[in-house]
Amino acid sequence: MNSNRSGRRRFLKYGAMAALAAGSGRSARGQSAGLEVPPHDAQTHGEPSRGATTPGSGLAVTTSTSHISHYTPLQDSVGIITPAALHFMQTHSSRLPDIDPQQHRLSIHGMVDRPLSFTVEELKRLPSVSRIYFLECHANGSPHHSARDAKMPSVQFIHGMTSCSEWTGVPLSVLLKETGLQKGASWLVSEGADADKFSHTLPLAKALDDVMVAYAQNGEPVRREQGYPLRLFVPGWEAPHSVKWLRHIKVVDQPYMTWNESMNHSIVRRDLGGKSRWYHFEIAPKSVITRPSGGLQLPGRGFYEITGLAWSGAGAVRRVEVSTDGGRHWKDAKLQEPVLRMAHTRFTLDWTWDGEETVLLSRCTDERGEVQPSLAELSRNWGFSDTDKLQATSRTIHINAIQPWLVARDGSVHDAMFS
Amino acid sequence: MNSNRSGRRRFLKYGAMAALAAGSGRSARGQSAGLEVPPHDAQTHGEPSRGATTPGSGLAVTTSTSHISHYTPLQDSVGIITPAALHFMQTHSSRLPDIDPQQHRLSIHGMVDRPLSFTVEELKRLPSVSRIYFLECHANGSPHHSARDAKMPSVQFIHGMTSCSEWTGVPLSVLLKETGLQKGASWLVSEGADADKFSHTLPLAKALDDVMVAYAQNGEPVRREQGYPLRLFVPGWEAPHSVKWLRHIKVVDQPYMTWNESMNHSIVRRDLGGKSRWYHFEIAPKSVITRPSGGLQLPGRGFYEITGLAWSGAGAVRRVEVSTDGGRHWKDAKLQEPVLRMAHTRFTLDWTWDGEETVLLSRCTDERGEVQPSLAELSRNWGFSDTDKLQATSRTIHINAIQPWLVARDGSVHDAMFS
Repeated sequence: MNSNRSGRRRFLKYGAMAALAAGSGRSARGQSAGLEVPPHDAQTHGEPSRGATTPGSGLAVTTSTSHISHYTPLQDSVGIITPAALHFMQTHSSRLPDIDPQQHRLSIHGMVDRPLSFTVEELKRLPSVSRIYFLECHANGSPHHSARDAKMPSVQFIHGMTSCSEWTGVPLSVLLKETGLQKGASWLVSEGADADKFSHTLPLAKALDDVMVAYAQNGEPVRREQGYPLRLFVPGWEAPHSVKWLRHIKVVDQPYMTWNESMNHSIVRRDLGGKSRWYHFEIAPKSVITRPSGGLQLPGRGFYEITGLAWSGAGAVRRVEVSTDGGRHWKDAKLQEPVLRMAHTRFTLDWTWDGEETVLLSRCTDERGEVQPSLAELSRNWGFSDTDKLQATSRTIHINAIQPWLVARDGSVHDAMFS
Repeated sequence: MNSNRSGRRRFLKYGAMAALAAGSGRSARGQSAGLEVPPHDAQTHGEPSRGATTPGSGLAVTTSTSHISHYTPLQDSVGIITPAALHFMQTHSSRLPDIDPQQHRLSIHGMVDRPLSFTVEELKRLPSVSRIYFLECHANGSPHHSARDAKMPSVQFIHGMTSCSEWTGVPLSVLLKETGLQKGASWLVSEGADADKFSHTLPLAKALDDVMVAYAQNGEPVRREQGYPLRLFVPGWEAPHSVKWLRHIKVVDQPYMTWNESMNHSIVRRDLGGKSRWYHFEIAPKSVITRPSGGLQLPGRGFYEITGLAWSGAGAVRRVEVSTDGGRHWKDAKLQEPVLRMAHTRFTLDWTWDGEETVLLSRCTDERGEVQPSLAELSRNWGFSDTDKLQATSRTIHINAIQPWLVARDGSVHDAMFS
């Protein structure tokens, strides 16, 4: 264990961490800090091919005084991995923090036996886990999404707030074992280092299950947009749980109603007698055809591979059905291996277009047997008499309705959610 | 099918391809060609975090008049996905081609019924496959590797010519079904569009099994360094098979001895009575500890997670053993899910360093039961009386020996292959 035997280092297994109260004595140097760099070791990071950076192939970015939004170009996606450079991002701050990783600390405090503070390099010495997981904004695919408001009916703007990468970090359970948990501890509140100090609650049971403090995405340090140098990653749950630029975790004994949860993330449920539901966790089973999709143009009748993505916060996708005739008939799509729990699953179906107008649909069933609903079914489930009423409500987040794409006779493809 | 019914369109299932002899009539427009780009759709591609671009965290590039080499920074790798920007590359041309994807064609000819030529967009309409696969240069880890010659003993320079990404393309079997195969066809010769027209042979049986014409890596168009816009991808086999900037595939009835295969890739085998072996296919079971590794510095005794990568061209990794005492005792490392066939597999082992000098080793066993040998075992297998003799030979490609890392008392880590 660490050669420093002073009383202020009172850790269980891993020995090299600095206590919060006492501050860090000698910071554990990262293993790569000592790397001898050969003279011709360029600090190179490759770029996309010149010919590949055509319009529509990149991340779309929108900014406003209250948001920065990045939309993944799903219309060009293949496979299940989203490159870090094309991962979606949504932040309620108007500016991204620019954090010095040497100065950054994650503190865990509140109802713990030993409040602790960790440098990024200290976290990297601890047992790690890597998993391929989707992450989805809870507003993705909403009928009120700006994509539809602004007549931008591409799959990128309607559904491009879901992405899938390999995330690596320390299991939060490892850190909480180091701090110890006091009796009655049952929730966490996490806070980011962004200007707005974005905060979110999390039940302790989930925290001890599969949540990680992530420092890498697809084998690289987490990008600035994704919370560099540290983010919480909460698999299968709506993205606001996965707090970026993670700085504080406070262990508490009840759910806190943080500002965003109260003001932006609660929703009135008619099926619950008009009460608001404040806490939304798991992403429901969902799928979307990414090609052909809104805004694209089929060059003519003939063979096409229909392809898309399916996912569920409950675990693995068990089945995806596709209809090429507006829902009269459904065929099982082929699921691309590997089919991983809480990850995007790529599906494909061979299709020969006869040149007539038609509507393409996809429908996901997850390992629990839950089936993705149509918008009409979803509206009924939520207590609305018809979809117009759903559309007319001020909040329509948490939507997992089937996405219909209309293929016109001229080959143009259109969003048909409300037609 | 295609509305053009002229005799020169004689295709089986997919109908939209242009015959090689006749040339392309109307090129099938890519589906994304018609994408309406909203006014504020920036052609954005994210960048690594400023704080993360420290020395040693990037791709290392070496160039000479005969080579361009990119080495993946394995010492910083986590998980199994290598970002496209950090994927290794080796080319025998001194300049990379810069191909216009609109002009590029892949032709398949030779012993086929219907010679065909495909644009990139035509290929993208066909049935696709995505798989997470490693790719490794056959000279990776060689005792004669420039890393050791030049006293650059990092894992990046010794073993950084293996990487793992999700590759997407059209199964070559789909294309060969379209062209048809004449009786006696048994091999292919593939040729790239680089200045040197890099060429390589491939047995037809493998081509019809799992080989793809890849147009995407990790969900993005293949990078220029990786063969943009098209490369052959031959899973589990030594990287020269996976011809970049793929332009021609000729179907033939015997193996051809292409220039690189003859001059650079054959090897004298004492165990075969001094004959040369010319054709090397599958990558043998292999593993390497990526952290701690050569050139890194442990900040002091205490807990470390030992982590590394294992892979085999024969299929899945079944077991990785790690020794922290120079081979006297071995422990089973934990294999990180998913464990995929012909993909990197991440392994980890918890370790508490007592501050004394020691040697770290890892040993891979694949699904076929083949075990990674020590350098001494490999030398004996190849008919050398000792490892000095192996080291003294002019060609030591196709090496899968166990990599020993010596940890000195001061925490510095060194390549100990020949100590």
